[in-house]
Amino acid sequence: MPNVKHFRMVDVISKKRDGASLSKEEIQYFIDGCVDGSIPDYQTSALLMAIYFQGMEDRELADFTMAMAHSGDMIDLSPINGIKVDKHSTGGVGDKTTMAVAPIVASCGVKMAKMSGRGLGHTGGTVDKLESIPGYNTVLDKESFFNQVNKIGVSVIGQSGNLAPADKKLYALRDVTGSVPSIPLIASSIMSKKLAAGADCILLDVKCGSGAFMKNVSDAVTLAQKMVAIGEHNGKRTMAYVTNMDIPLGENIGNALEVKEVVDVLNGRGPADLTLECEELSATLLMMAGKGDRPECIAMVRKAIENGEAMDKFKEMVQAQGGDISVFDNPEEFTRAAVCYEVKSDREGYISAMDTESIGIASTMLGAGRETLDSIIDPTAGITICKKTGDKVNIGDVLAKFYTSREELLSPAVKRYYEALSYSQQAPEKSKLVYAVVDKDGVTMR
Amino acid sequence: MPNVKHFRMVDVISKKRDGASLSKEEIQYFIDGCVDGSIPDYQTSALLMAIYFQGMEDRELADFTMAMAHSGDMIDLSPINGIKVDKHSTGGVGDKTTMAVAPIVASCGVKMAKMSGRGLGHTGGTVDKLESIPGYNTVLDKESFFNQVNKIGVSVIGQSGNLAPADKKLYALRDVTGSVPSIPLIASSIMSKKLAAGADCILLDVKCGSGAFMKNVSDAVTLAQKMVAIGEHNGKRTMAYVTNMDIPLGENIGNALEVKEVVDVLNGRGPADLTLECEELSATLLMMAGKGDRPECIAMVRKAIENGEAMDKFKEMVQAQGGDISVFDNPEEFTRAAVCYEVKSDREGYISAMDTESIGIASTMLGAGRETLDSIIDPTAGITICKKTGDKVNIGDVLAKFYTSREELLSPAVKRYYEALSYSQQAPEKSKLVYAVVDKDGVTMR
Repeated sequence: MPNVKHFRMVDVISKKRDGASLSKEEIQYFIDGCVDGSIPDYQTSALLMAIYFQGMEDRELADFTMAMAHSGDMIDLSPINGIKVDKHSTGGVGDKTTMAVAPIVASCGVKMAKMSGRGLGHTGGTVDKLESIPGYNTVLDKESFFNQVNKIGVSVIGQSGNLAPADKKLYALRDVTGSVPSIPLIASSIMSKKLAAGADCILLDVKCGSGAFMKNVSDAVTLAQKMVAIGEHNGKRTMAYVTNMDIPLGENIGNALEVKEVVDVLNGRGPADLTLECEELSATLLMMAGKGDRPECIAMVRKAIENGEAMDKFKEMVQAQGGDISVFDNPEEFTRAAVCYEVKSDREGYISAMDTESIGIASTMLGAGRETLDSIIDPTAGITICKKTGDKVNIGDVLAKFYTSREELLSPAVKRYYEALSYSQQAPEKSKLVYAVVDKDGVTMR
Repeated sequence: MPNVKHFRMVDVISKKRDGASLSKEEIQYFIDGCVDGSIPDYQTSALLMAIYFQGMEDRELADFTMAMAHSGDMIDLSPINGIKVDKHSTGGVGDKTTMAVAPIVASCGVKMAKMSGRGLGHTGGTVDKLESIPGYNTVLDKESFFNQVNKIGVSVIGQSGNLAPADKKLYALRDVTGSVPSIPLIASSIMSKKLAAGADCILLDVKCGSGAFMKNVSDAVTLAQKMVAIGEHNGKRTMAYVTNMDIPLGENIGNALEVKEVVDVLNGRGPADLTLECEELSATLLMMAGKGDRPECIAMVRKAIENGEAMDKFKEMVQAQGGDISVFDNPEEFTRAAVCYEVKSDREGYISAMDTESIGIASTMLGAGRETLDSIIDPTAGITICKKTGDKVNIGDVLAKFYTSREELLSPAVKRYYEALSYSQQAPEKSKLVYAVVDKDGVTMR
């Protein structure tokens, strides 16, 4: 006979309400009941609100997250030889690092079998970006996915299977009951899917600023710490970067435009901020996989870019997934949109701030993103940013180039873009790209 | 066209979660939606948990409570001439004050049209107690109720009509989602029904101690303050007593036994604690109704007891409601149970504490109370307490007399009673009967 423990949900809620930590068994009882429907939503939402106020300690949160992961498919990556790494961004504007990092680390001998998401709202998604490459197939069956990673070291596909259905259920409920902005609940939502995805090492990029969900560094660092604790408690080597999202990353927003910019990075001609962040994240993944210390790993990454191996690996991946790599030889053609419009400055001074969420929304308005889950994406729509925070501009300078297939979409997007910019007469202080790095031993502020 | 404001429940929850006060319109939207079912229970329970953590300020709580009251029948007592007073106890063991206070104040010229509740768990209810009087009818139609109060100044009946259905709904949800122990929610639950019951003046008796829901004086005073604020903000003269429930009130628990003890009080022969509390509450109601200052009102109350007018008024009420007043001439007969058992002390020393809730439960176990809503009450079952906290006892002294119709109920009840008593070798410090009196001007600690 199984050793079944009996709980009453009202006791579990009251325990958390009073600030105690829930046991592994209580957590399992809750997640099981939440998914099978035996615990009614009104009790679940009360517990979520109690967690909002009382938080969860690390062991408890790790158990909670693993129970969420186990509510659905647990992907077993053991058919792939060696250490498998994963990388996740909490979402930003112009964040195309996954597309560069995956081939860089693979070219350095570390495998990445990566399932990525689609974009929604002001943030893009890697799967949408890759699909702008003609022929690129983001839907592989498990065997082909594993075979490709075993053979060439890398594959990036769309999320498939039934990953962490408890998270879907809890997130839907949090969304309508006011418990979305709870750091432990955000951490468990992200990490439940990472744990289910099966990698050995997980590197998180917590975006922070006006274009991110986390608006201040303190909250972002706390989220990073919670996620690292969840991973490490569950036997995964886990680290997190906290990076600046008060400014778009790189100079391009939009699907084909971002692929083009990744090709620039891999060819050693990318924008400085994006290149640096790709190098940092790639080197950290190599360190986590045991390839060496930080200077060694940074050197390996730079070498892979310089000698073209990273770009070759990217092409190899694209080709393996059916994509047409000839577009990379002719990026102007690949990214050409029906309409190109130059947004010019009507003021003079320094750009002192960019409301990055608004800039992401402007790009979505041009057709580059999804406003709802079933929106259709225009692959060549988007924005090339010519002036960023800190740049001096004169009247008539081109601030950005807007690309779209439909001219009528321009005007509201341009209006939104203008409103997103603040000016000052003095050059603003230079902001950091990386705020902090978090691992199991603590936080290193940069 | 009505000026309809549109709210989203998730915004209302988030506002409260962040500690802001809800507007009257937001509160009305919530209570309406809660009662008509348009707001799902999972949102209601999340708001209740947010209120648990963030509380409600007085104006907000007053609006919340009045919206709950208006969710059902609002009783219009205007067909009754003069000022109508109401009195409410939060529930204790041996608390039979309503049965004495109602005829006392009526005999002094202040009208009480009182709807009372039934007992549940360890606490008794006035309606059950009055129904132990043969023939007493607790179900009057509105016209008869009003007529009786206009004619003789007093009537005590059972709660009828649809009072504060929002409270029923919210309480049922709180009960299963861990938000019962929220002082503002407790205050609104009680006061919504008091506001709906229509009296001009409301006197609350907040019980505090081992036999009450409020276990400490600080919480009890806070609850009293919240209830007074709710009443006063809604135009009702409201006061509250905070009284000791670490010890049963009076010497009798059980329905007929408590009626007999009320007759003793009205005949000037009641136990000191019960008599004093009945005098205090009655005099306060007279003051609230404008009959004079405190010494004058205390004198009026004592006179009404001494000259027999209070007892006459009680008989008049019982007779008007069909009860047989001859039982008061022969109380031994009226309270006689099939089985009487003397619980004797097996120890010597002072009784240092009585777990009053357990004593209430022991009485319920004898048949005097309800364990569930459909339990049948044995009117003559109960306990006469012979030794109370502070009394010196020797081995073999009678601690209490147990009354029941079924001998087999004795043994578990006796066991429970023994366990409820603590002993010491030194006489314990004498405890207070009244801890505090609260009115709109503040708290007076006694």
